[in-house]
Amino acid sequence: MAVVEVSITPLGAGIGVSRFVAGALRRLKESGLHYQLTPMGTVIEGDLDEILRVVRLMHESPFNEGAQRVSTQIKIDDRRDVETHTLASKVRSVEEKL
Amino acid sequence: MAVVEVSITPLGAGIGVSRFVAGALRRLKESGLHYQLTPMGTVIEGDLDEILRVVRLMHESPFNEGAQRVSTQIKIDDRRDVETHTLASKVRSVEEKL
Amino acid sequence: MAVVEVSITPLGAGIGVSRFVAGALRRLKESGLHYQLTPMGTVIEGDLDEILRVVRLMHESPFNEGAQRVSTQIKIDDRRDVETHTLASKVRSVEEKL
Amino acid sequence: MAVVEVSITPLGAGIGVSRFVAGALRRLKESGLHYQLTPMGTVIEGDLDEILRVVRLMHESPFNEGAQRVSTQIKIDDRRDVETHTLASKVRSVEEKL
Repeated sequence: MAVVEVSITPLGAGIGVSRFVAGALRRLKESGLHYQLTPMGTVIEGDLDEILRVVRLMHESPFNEGAQRVSTQIKIDDRRDVETHTLASKVRSVEEKL
Repeated sequence: MAVVEVSITPLGAGIGVSRFVAGALRRLKESGLHYQLTPMGTVIEGDLDEILRVVRLMHESPFNEGAQRVSTQIKIDDRRDVETHTLASKVRSVEEKL
Repeated sequence: MAVVEVSITPLGAGIGVSRFVAGALRRLKESGLHYQLTPMGTVIEGDLDEILRVVRLMHESPFNEGAQRVSTQIKIDDRRDVETHTLASKVRSVEEKL
Repeated sequence: MAVVEVSITPLGAGIGVSRFVAGALRRLKESGLHYQLTPMGTVIEGDLDEILRVVRLMHESPFNEGAQRVSTQIKIDDRRDVETHTLASKVRSVEEKL
């Protein structure tokens, strides 16, 4: 299991870009992958290759809505020494040590 | 108002780093700034210079706990054309377009 | 054409990680894609899907060398309104305006 | 010594942003800090607090040139277990292992 953060920003498509982010999120919703929308990106958990396949569709989405330049950031946290590596387990492991 | 995402990762300090992240978050809690812990970082809202001052303390925290190399990522979203630019308004502006 | 920056960091595999970065770069060299090694990552130009295919191999490389957790960051700059969007053209377009 | 990568992107200020990047780089040139312009950002070496002071000026630069929203990314690699941690030493430590 991997945890991946993605943020998608069209350039030259206006100061506010939330409609493009919403369009990309619709591709993610269709995939059925578990995700969390945050103020600075979207965090997804699951099989890494399936996540990257969907992120590629998300990256393409703003172009389909008229953008001509898109900056996409993908941050992969791929941990293979533990059974559980999820959105919830990552937050819990910090909160319980606060 | 700015929205800033910060993630702090000590290198060579073990595979699991949540205790270091918790230590850095304690510096943030002491500051009184409004923040949200996510699976891939911590998002903070407020005055940019105050946030950067606190993030500098957060970056130092793992060194105080024995780390010898720290990778810190800071992502600033500084928007000055609107009155409201917060953690909640950024998420709401996407969700209402889904 | 896209320009992509990738940085690969194994966690819990020592303070110095250059041997893992070198291993990942060997995958990139084998691909024949044009790239530039920088102090904070590696920048690649070419077809986006070919780049992402190779980056996936680069991400896997530290695991093949014993790492158990890898943080990989991928930053895509995908621009479709111009004929030329390369490592050289991006640097030149800034330098000529200095 | 720290090595820091910074990238500055105004949103809603056109598809091409090199004039804003050049403006920010002029602030960096004035500082005298040693840096390298790359296709995806600018890498700086030196005292961390001095670098962060200058990066704050760089972040402000696009606003002084009419931008209304700026996304700035700062990636700090702060290593304290070695005498030499520079742009050149980081690249060399990878290249010699290729």
